[in-house]
Amino acid sequence: MALRGDNVTVQEVGLRDGLQSIAAVMPTSEKKRWIDKEYAAGVRHMEVASFVPARLLPQLADAAEVVAHALTYPDLTVTALVPNLKGAEKALECGVHRIVAPISVSIAHSLANVRKTPHDMIEEFGRISDLRFSAGKQKCTLIAGLSTVFGCTLRGEVPLADVRDIILRVIDAGADLVALADTTGHATPGQVDEFLTALRPLDETKISIAHFHDTRGMALANTLMALKNGIREFDASLAGLGGCPHAPGATGNVATEDLVFMLDSLGFRTGIDVELLLDTRAVLQDNLPQAALYGSLARSGLPKGYATMQLQTERVMA
Amino acid sequence: MALRGDNVTVQEVGLRDGLQSIAAVMPTSEKKRWIDKEYAAGVRHMEVASFVPARLLPQLADAAEVVAHALTYPDLTVTALVPNLKGAEKALECGVHRIVAPISVSIAHSLANVRKTPHDMIEEFGRISDLRFSAGKQKCTLIAGLSTVFGCTLRGEVPLADVRDIILRVIDAGADLVALADTTGHATPGQVDEFLTALRPLDETKISIAHFHDTRGMALANTLMALKNGIREFDASLAGLGGCPHAPGATGNVATEDLVFMLDSLGFRTGIDVELLLDTRAVLQDNLPQAALYGSLARSGLPKGYATMQLQTERVMA
Repeated sequence: MALRGDNVTVQEVGLRDGLQSIAAVMPTSEKKRWIDKEYAAGVRHMEVASFVPARLLPQLADAAEVVAHALTYPDLTVTALVPNLKGAEKALECGVHRIVAPISVSIAHSLANVRKTPHDMIEEFGRISDLRFSAGKQKCTLIAGLSTVFGCTLRGEVPLADVRDIILRVIDAGADLVALADTTGHATPGQVDEFLTALRPLDETKISIAHFHDTRGMALANTLMALKNGIREFDASLAGLGGCPHAPGATGNVATEDLVFMLDSLGFRTGIDVELLLDTRAVLQDNLPQAALYGSLARSGLPKGYATMQLQTERVMA
Repeated sequence: MALRGDNVTVQEVGLRDGLQSIAAVMPTSEKKRWIDKEYAAGVRHMEVASFVPARLLPQLADAAEVVAHALTYPDLTVTALVPNLKGAEKALECGVHRIVAPISVSIAHSLANVRKTPHDMIEEFGRISDLRFSAGKQKCTLIAGLSTVFGCTLRGEVPLADVRDIILRVIDAGADLVALADTTGHATPGQVDEFLTALRPLDETKISIAHFHDTRGMALANTLMALKNGIREFDASLAGLGGCPHAPGATGNVATEDLVFMLDSLGFRTGIDVELLLDTRAVLQDNLPQAALYGSLARSGLPKGYATMQLQTERVMA
């Protein structure tokens, strides 16, 4: 499997997954600045908001305005999270390109997170899918964001058979794409390889997105295993911002800058400039002084000679 | 390439690589406790000391006594670092099983570290090799510890051709094994793959050890690439202790406990119990209260259901 030159999509999810788990509310103007700077760095996929009631997540109450700003960039793919049909209505009204609806594989996590079972969530997912057509928004891509795929802080291990079952159901319910999320940082490279080897053949076109958290430092190694299994889209959060309010001990997503740096080293094309990404951390430092910011690259700096390394293109993973 | 069930050697180098870069001097009795606890955890390879003048590294002045203690375990492979012939004489007298002599690929790092060129160091390496025979210690394994293989904080990128040249010279000079060290945390997975693909065919039996630092969070991903290329021995340091006094900004080795956790997940047999390793960190906390201790696993804990995961053996990396 020669991977040289493959394009890889890195979606910034810090504006949603990062900010939702931090108490401080970032001003709308600063969210726009964040989008502007990441766009300038070359990021072309962002999950910028969540359409949830403002009383639940005041940090994301400006979803419509943030989406509207993101949509001013004609080549930026704008994604929003929706927890239910009502949120989907709003997201479709705003004209997002992609909707991601989360469904926990773990019943315990699902009940803690949304007070519904995975089965209930899949039924709602089907209604969201239907809504696209009745609203004349069939071009909007619907993503099933499967959470706790690789384990759960409440339940522990999640059986592969459960994941397989839910994947088949969400595809049947209308999912265009399926994202596999390690919400709680349980995944290990061996497990990622095992799961993806078993699951991707169910539908290689649709099962195409991975979302890793770096709770146990495995996110980049897990990414390598996902690449090996053909995954070419990854979620990440600038400075590893985030976590999950209903998954105790789960630290943030893999840091976008570290992920892009590694993908560069492997010869994958992301279109993203790591140095400009690192500069973008200033938005977080300015607005979230209490938040834990992660990222090995920010701590250590780019290696001496990084520009030269970038010119080497003979990178092959066989 | 099915890796299931392969044995992988993890060598603890914190007693040498970790302690040498920390100003505090750990009492000899506590070093023995560290050895005892890691042995109890299943570690069977340790680099326990460096035979350097006590005025240069007072932290390691008790090398002979520490080695003697380690040698009381009949199935523990005891390695010591020696910077020169004089150090090698002492190490051989103490009866270590393996000697590792460091040679920087980067001239700038070599001069800063030992005030000698790589060429001078290779000549000394040859004298060390000869000494084994004249001293009747030909059973002692001689390891060429090549440092700054993947880059250098002083020089930047290190050309692959330079590494190849030095590997051939040290093998010619008598090296039984060659360890490739990312002394300054420059290595990226793409580079590790590229370098090992090019270098291992020079002598697959001898070029068999990797030593990664986690400066930019790439150590575990680099390890995956080394595994893919057939490397089956890795250095690591408990709690990621260490760095390099002559490589500014280089943080510590990959944490032993994180490395073992990942290897477990891939189905490799290390013989090491991660929970007992985590307990061993107490020795560092007790004795080095000022030192930075790293390790994602220690921060986040083992995942719920870890014992169950261990029972799954169907892990394959193809």
